[in-house]
Amino acid sequence: MTKKGLLIVISGPSGTGKGTICKELLNREQNMKISISATTRETRTGEIDGINYYFIDKDTFENQISQDAFLEHAKVYDNYYGTPKKYVIDEINKGNNVLLEIDIQGALQVKEKYPEGLFIFILPPSMKELKKRIVGRGTESDKAIEKRFKSAFEEIDYVKKYDYFVVNDEVEVAVERIRAIMLAETFKITEDIQSMISKFKEESLC
Amino acid sequence: MTKKGLLIVISGPSGTGKGTICKELLNREQNMKISISATTRETRTGEIDGINYYFIDKDTFENQISQDAFLEHAKVYDNYYGTPKKYVIDEINKGNNVLLEIDIQGALQVKEKYPEGLFIFILPPSMKELKKRIVGRGTESDKAIEKRFKSAFEEIDYVKKYDYFVVNDEVEVAVERIRAIMLAETFKITEDIQSMISKFKEESLC
Repeated sequence: MTKKGLLIVISGPSGTGKGTICKELLNREQNMKISISATTRETRTGEIDGINYYFIDKDTFENQISQDAFLEHAKVYDNYYGTPKKYVIDEINKGNNVLLEIDIQGALQVKEKYPEGLFIFILPPSMKELKKRIVGRGTESDKAIEKRFKSAFEEIDYVKKYDYFVVNDEVEVAVERIRAIMLAETFKITEDIQSMISKFKEESLC
Repeated sequence: MTKKGLLIVISGPSGTGKGTICKELLNREQNMKISISATTRETRTGEIDGINYYFIDKDTFENQISQDAFLEHAKVYDNYYGTPKKYVIDEINKGNNVLLEIDIQGALQVKEKYPEGLFIFILPPSMKELKKRIVGRGTESDKAIEKRFKSAFEEIDYVKKYDYFVVNDEVEVAVERIRAIMLAETFKITEDIQSMISKFKEESLC
């Protein structure tokens, strides 16, 4: 029997560096797949179906919602975005770990559907640093920055719904922390332990 | 405020290599103290009070039992053995990790008094290997070996009362697994999280 993989959910306010962490994590980890979202929005130049997103039409998306085919989904303006359940579950059953980078609302939905996931909340080194990072993007008006920061400030309270928090002071260090959490998770005593132990005793005596 | 240290309880059947693991763990970890037992048995040649054991008399030991001064204690033949609570709690409050190597009965007592501990069960690579190790000691009669093995076989079921299991196939690897578990533990979301977050937000905005 293959040992099941883990669903690793990397989440947190915007500006905390989730994306960079996930990229680095994928570089270092073998047997790790990234979860690809489905969306109804238009394909942008350079985007490839099945790599950046699964591009599907609105009817298909709504049909899949009704079939409970998503671990989470949201409508942003006129477009749907969602995490297809089948891919994640298939990979986990094959023994692969699946990485899902997602905002807090999405993560909380995933937790309802798949509580066995490993929910990791990325924190900035400080709120000051977070503000600096949001400002540093230089793409937004003062008002938009203020709004984004306020929302991040409030979102931090959701950390209590997660399993672990990781402060992203340095990407390398943050990634090693996440890898330690993943490793520890494989040695955790769960409800499966009784069958594992029975098998251990039988195999050993053959 | 100093972050509290962890009580790391390394436990499992005899013959699984708990002692070697603990020695290696102490070599590699800074800020880790070893818990020293108290006993009423006679000091043996070479043993030093406060290093190998705290040697105390029977009246003192019984008095301390009545004052709930032990995390666990047991009477083996005519002698008491126990883990003094004060040392462990003091070191944890100072931010140090405390290592406690103990048999399963002892670990379960500790868990009742200090459930926040990190309870790690050491498993042999296989039951066959465990038998080899017990036989390999060469100090016991066939009957004693059989008895010890039978007891180890039964004791393995207690793994379900622990937080983590670690297979000791290679000491180095087992120690690294335990270190990953310890590291992950420091990022776990616990009941303290709300106060941590409030402080995080305040400090950051100063």
